[in-house]
Amino acid sequence: MGKYVFGIDVGGTSVKFGLFEVDGSNGNLIEKWSIPTRTEDSGSHILPDIADSIKNKISEKSYGLDEIIGAGIGLPGPVDDKGIIRKAVNLYWKEDFNVEERLSGLLDGMKVKATNDANAAALGEAWAGSAKNAMNVLMITLGTGVGGGIVINGKVYAGTTGAAGEVGHIMIERDFEEKCNCGNAGCLEQFASATGMVRVGRRMLSETADPSPLRERRDRLTAKDIWDAAKDGDSMGLKIAGEIGRYLGEGLAIIATVLNPEVIVIGGGVSAAGKIVLESVEKHFKKHIFHASAGTKIVLASLGNDGGIYGTAKLLID
Amino acid sequence: MGKYVFGIDVGGTSVKFGLFEVDGSNGNLIEKWSIPTRTEDSGSHILPDIADSIKNKISEKSYGLDEIIGAGIGLPGPVDDKGIIRKAVNLYWKEDFNVEERLSGLLDGMKVKATNDANAAALGEAWAGSAKNAMNVLMITLGTGVGGGIVINGKVYAGTTGAAGEVGHIMIERDFEEKCNCGNAGCLEQFASATGMVRVGRRMLSETADPSPLRERRDRLTAKDIWDAAKDGDSMGLKIAGEIGRYLGEGLAIIATVLNPEVIVIGGGVSAAGKIVLESVEKHFKKHIFHASAGTKIVLASLGNDGGIYGTAKLLID
Repeated sequence: MGKYVFGIDVGGTSVKFGLFEVDGSNGNLIEKWSIPTRTEDSGSHILPDIADSIKNKISEKSYGLDEIIGAGIGLPGPVDDKGIIRKAVNLYWKEDFNVEERLSGLLDGMKVKATNDANAAALGEAWAGSAKNAMNVLMITLGTGVGGGIVINGKVYAGTTGAAGEVGHIMIERDFEEKCNCGNAGCLEQFASATGMVRVGRRMLSETADPSPLRERRDRLTAKDIWDAAKDGDSMGLKIAGEIGRYLGEGLAIIATVLNPEVIVIGGGVSAAGKIVLESVEKHFKKHIFHASAGTKIVLASLGNDGGIYGTAKLLID
Repeated sequence: MGKYVFGIDVGGTSVKFGLFEVDGSNGNLIEKWSIPTRTEDSGSHILPDIADSIKNKISEKSYGLDEIIGAGIGLPGPVDDKGIIRKAVNLYWKEDFNVEERLSGLLDGMKVKATNDANAAALGEAWAGSAKNAMNVLMITLGTGVGGGIVINGKVYAGTTGAAGEVGHIMIERDFEEKCNCGNAGCLEQFASATGMVRVGRRMLSETADPSPLRERRDRLTAKDIWDAAKDGDSMGLKIAGEIGRYLGEGLAIIATVLNPEVIVIGGGVSAAGKIVLESVEKHFKKHIFHASAGTKIVLASLGNDGGIYGTAKLLID
């Protein structure tokens, strides 16, 4: 019976590792490190590099193989229940394949579980973060894009093709004409990702002449500028934050009416703006949530960039 | 080891029963019957009446108690994972209580499992109906209201407070002012229930003067009139069906982008209009569904009013 688990979070520029000591259904992060993601040669070095790093760590620690429960890996792309990854364009992988089997083969048969990176972060928050002890959790990540993951009965729900929780691509603005990266139009991501927030901000700045420090930054506006202005009490900043919060609050109310989660976790880079994000969302969420799901709590993620290594480690711990 | 299961579907006017002979994970419906739902005296007769009916059937069939696996019961109200029903207003039940424990007590300790009626219908279709063999299913029922149920990994997903799948109450029309029965405004139910379809029809008839047989029925218009006119090729009927299909297609695309189901089953009284309902929905669904969930199949329910007894029986069969 082993007692150590590896959590691996694969991003487009680096791979983060966590080594956890397992105690029942708990786990303590005892070490973390990272390596570059080598995307050259169609990403063919990525899994061998990961396997080498894990083998080196096992050797460095002088662990016996019987002490290792296994490794969980989170990937930027849809991963189904069988461990098959599809369309991992950020890793330059050209084919769909079973990543659990392949990495396990590189690790002398070590048990490997794979999931999507957003699902991993959701599971991490449900296990050890701000949704700790909640069985049904929706996580939404606000960053370059808007991603999401779903935990049901304490486990990742990956969906039929690994695409469950793609909350950035629900239609939220019917007659919007500009295309989303996904090919549709009017997606939540177009208003609630970092670039989406800037889109909302620029539109609102162009609709009025109200003075605002944001106006002089209009051409190089960032999501952080908007939230900083709102926190400073700038009226234009508050209006834009309110409009972004309306999109997010409406979207989350729709999703929570379907999923009836216990907790919604808001994460991703933009969530660093803090509780003003929650405040902007809540009024609109309450307006549209079905009464039987009105008890859904909305919280900020607490594990930050470590959510993925926690969640992937948890895949091996019951 | 028993071999019979009862499925019980409790409605506001009648309680339907099914007796199933179990064979592995299959079940054959060998008899069905119904009794009136006595809602007087705060619905206090309902569960005792159900228990009497089941005991009579067991006695009539001369089954031994060891031949009975148990009974599943579907109820019009949210039921959580523990079997607690809340706010069953159609049954005039004033308190929240554990219906599994109470009915089991009336049946000398027989194993009882309870769920919401829409979840039961979803599970029935996933087990023995038009979503047979699908692990992840969303069912939407179009009737007096719009309900829904979710099956994940072959089991009902009830949600945190038993309210998962309340797809009739997702916000679909942002600036709609008329209130929904739920207290919010702009809910899918306001456009896709039988009365919602009539609302859409009346609005569209008032917006044009196009000739249509629907026009003379305007004050007593029904959902069936609309679908019949569309099937007859009446241009106004087709336009209204298209508009209803737009609301439904958009709503289902949003939900399927979150849930990534294998199959969406459309049921309820209005689905009797047949494949024209599917045709009206599909174009709009395809427009808004996220590409990774575009393989979601949309089908009509095939068990009709028997979905509930199949699904509740399935609660006892693994």
